[in-house]
Amino acid sequence: MNKIYNPKREDWKDVLRRPTQTVADIEGLVNTIFEEVKTSGDSILKKYTQEFDKVTLENMLVSDVEIEKAKALVSNDLKSAIQLAKSNIEVFHKAQKTGRVAVETARGVSCWQEKRPIQKVGLYIPGGTAPLFSTILMLAVPATIAGCSEIVLCSPPDKEGQLNPAILYTANLCGVTKIIKVGGIQAIAGMTFGTESIPQVYKIFGPGNQFVTVAKQIATKHGVAIDMPAGPSELLVVADDTANASFVASDLLSQAEHGIDSQVILVSTSKTMINAVEKEVALQLEELPRKEIARQAIANSKLIYVEDDQMAIDLINEYGPEHYIVCVANEDFYIDNTQNAGSVFIGNYTPESAGDYASGTNHTLPTNGYAKQYSGVNLDSFMKSMTFQKITKEGIQNIGNAVELMAEAEGLQAHKNAITLRLKSL
Amino acid sequence: MNKIYNPKREDWKDVLRRPTQTVADIEGLVNTIFEEVKTSGDSILKKYTQEFDKVTLENMLVSDVEIEKAKALVSNDLKSAIQLAKSNIEVFHKAQKTGRVAVETARGVSCWQEKRPIQKVGLYIPGGTAPLFSTILMLAVPATIAGCSEIVLCSPPDKEGQLNPAILYTANLCGVTKIIKVGGIQAIAGMTFGTESIPQVYKIFGPGNQFVTVAKQIATKHGVAIDMPAGPSELLVVADDTANASFVASDLLSQAEHGIDSQVILVSTSKTMINAVEKEVALQLEELPRKEIARQAIANSKLIYVEDDQMAIDLINEYGPEHYIVCVANEDFYIDNTQNAGSVFIGNYTPESAGDYASGTNHTLPTNGYAKQYSGVNLDSFMKSMTFQKITKEGIQNIGNAVELMAEAEGLQAHKNAITLRLKSL
Repeated sequence: MNKIYNPKREDWKDVLRRPTQTVADIEGLVNTIFEEVKTSGDSILKKYTQEFDKVTLENMLVSDVEIEKAKALVSNDLKSAIQLAKSNIEVFHKAQKTGRVAVETARGVSCWQEKRPIQKVGLYIPGGTAPLFSTILMLAVPATIAGCSEIVLCSPPDKEGQLNPAILYTANLCGVTKIIKVGGIQAIAGMTFGTESIPQVYKIFGPGNQFVTVAKQIATKHGVAIDMPAGPSELLVVADDTANASFVASDLLSQAEHGIDSQVILVSTSKTMINAVEKEVALQLEELPRKEIARQAIANSKLIYVEDDQMAIDLINEYGPEHYIVCVANEDFYIDNTQNAGSVFIGNYTPESAGDYASGTNHTLPTNGYAKQYSGVNLDSFMKSMTFQKITKEGIQNIGNAVELMAEAEGLQAHKNAITLRLKSL
Repeated sequence: MNKIYNPKREDWKDVLRRPTQTVADIEGLVNTIFEEVKTSGDSILKKYTQEFDKVTLENMLVSDVEIEKAKALVSNDLKSAIQLAKSNIEVFHKAQKTGRVAVETARGVSCWQEKRPIQKVGLYIPGGTAPLFSTILMLAVPATIAGCSEIVLCSPPDKEGQLNPAILYTANLCGVTKIIKVGGIQAIAGMTFGTESIPQVYKIFGPGNQFVTVAKQIATKHGVAIDMPAGPSELLVVADDTANASFVASDLLSQAEHGIDSQVILVSTSKTMINAVEKEVALQLEELPRKEIARQAIANSKLIYVEDDQMAIDLINEYGPEHYIVCVANEDFYIDNTQNAGSVFIGNYTPESAGDYASGTNHTLPTNGYAKQYSGVNLDSFMKSMTFQKITKEGIQNIGNAVELMAEAEGLQAHKNAITLRLKSL
């Protein structure tokens, strides 16, 4: 871990620099696969599944029988845990519902705003060693609350052509309408254009490796929206002497085990705490199954000592952490003054992993400093707001002249004329 | 105008195809200018202003003196019109404020969501013949309500090195913090990286030609967000025999005068109305100063007859119009069943131009079918939502086991450990 004491403001940019993202030059490959999928549909998806996932699939669509089998394979304990998490996520995301906003801006001029669901959404869930069923909870639960009518899930099959039972169980539990066994660039292309098996969707959500990340970027060029740009996961902890060094170390390590490019930062006004956390990290690291990954992430991590809270908050706002744990006596100062963060975890008993799984907040959050301008996934991510207006004869008389003047000043005579004709008719 | 009677569902895609966007292959040029601006800052901005706008500027930043001079040049009538529009836009956008959403998802697990302003935003206002001061109202008013601390406006100078007085007056009135005389690709690059004169911003809003459109796309690769992807403006009117053909024609023409690639569609269950609108368009067109532009847009426009309301609404939802005027007896059917539209104008006295300028709704809306998944600009466009959570000892005992089980099932032992350590301490 790199200890940095009192970095100067002009050095913050360097101190806070994130690990270089290793998005290789794969745009060419992505463009090729997109073209092929657009032209050939399912047949090319199967070809790539054979090539990348080493399995030949007759049918990519998961059947009811497969779902029933999967249900039997998930332990009752895990089912209960998933149900508890689902319930908390539902409560928090249902609370985010907003009603119609209606005002009469001038007499006879009624304007209102309503949110309506994005009808078709696609969720991408990566394959690999860890079956990320928690991400299904985070995406399918709000999609269902929003009222999306088509919720498509794509995930790459294993060499037996199967998806992990926990994936199927959770997807079925959370209202996913169609599950397709396909992964990688070809899955994103399939949801972008639609194929015989995959419905075309309007917005694609979910994490993935660099191939999926680039494919999602390219998808936006073809009229599809995405949840947010991706980057390595990251955690910043601010802690003073009231924090528990062992807890803080466990949080830093839980972030570090995600990947070697994960970013982990401790900011503290206490050198004692910095030293204590450093020791605890070294101790706990040895016990982890994924210690080789965590060790590399920790090697790049930073323990930053600053002299006071104001300096700390300025530095934190400059960074804009995805996950942000606040373990300090004067927590209100940090809560009130944080401008840029994805999700904030407050106090000694609020580890990041609570929010990753089961507290109810969403774990799909802006990385890479994007907390400065992007929201984490929330109910509104699955809706779009539309405006409506209805103007009476009195209303057009109240605002008509202003519109005529402004349209004329902008040189748009036909805009003016649409008002003039109506005013003259009255 | 092209009349299409009862198009078959399988032909809708072709019938509703939008004019090809003429985004030329200018990514190379954009990337070059971005690199130059990143490296050389103001000096290269001035070079391009000389090259493209034909004026040599000592100082790109608009001074207080320039603003005071501009104020004196705007007529009192226009000032009053702008103030009335501003007031309505304020009322509607202030009403969109949402409070903190707080719930206890499980006993001892408090979660809340809060929206905080995007600190630094950039507004781009095109130059050219029409000074789009109305767009400043639509962007700077909600930015100010949101609480953005830095609101930067870039707009290209004329050959005298000036901005239109109405632009300066409106920007000053609406709380823009800095106005810079620079346009095109170089302005977008400047706001992306920051230069001596232009502050770096986190999100860029506003319309522009194809160079600006591509520059905004490229800006997203450099960590900046944008309001939404751009496309030619468009209007769809649904009208039955209760509509006024002359009014409808004036609305179609107000859209058509925007540009030759503007898209204009009338959907009707009445052949009589279709024929009447066609005649009215021909008549009114001849009176317009911008008739050459409007004529070309109208040539590509469509009058679509469908047999019943259900067919009409399905077709409209398939299209997802940016602007959408509803002039029918059973308007509630259309309002309730519209899934995809940017802004909806209801009744004979609600022309699009009312919303373009002064009713209070925003005129920055999703084109190109993006209404299926994007919101128009609204108060939330200038904020990001953050989540917070605070868990007590009781709370972690309530959800801790579920988190442990799920983390273990996902193979993330350090995530589990962050819970286990805390549970053991209790």
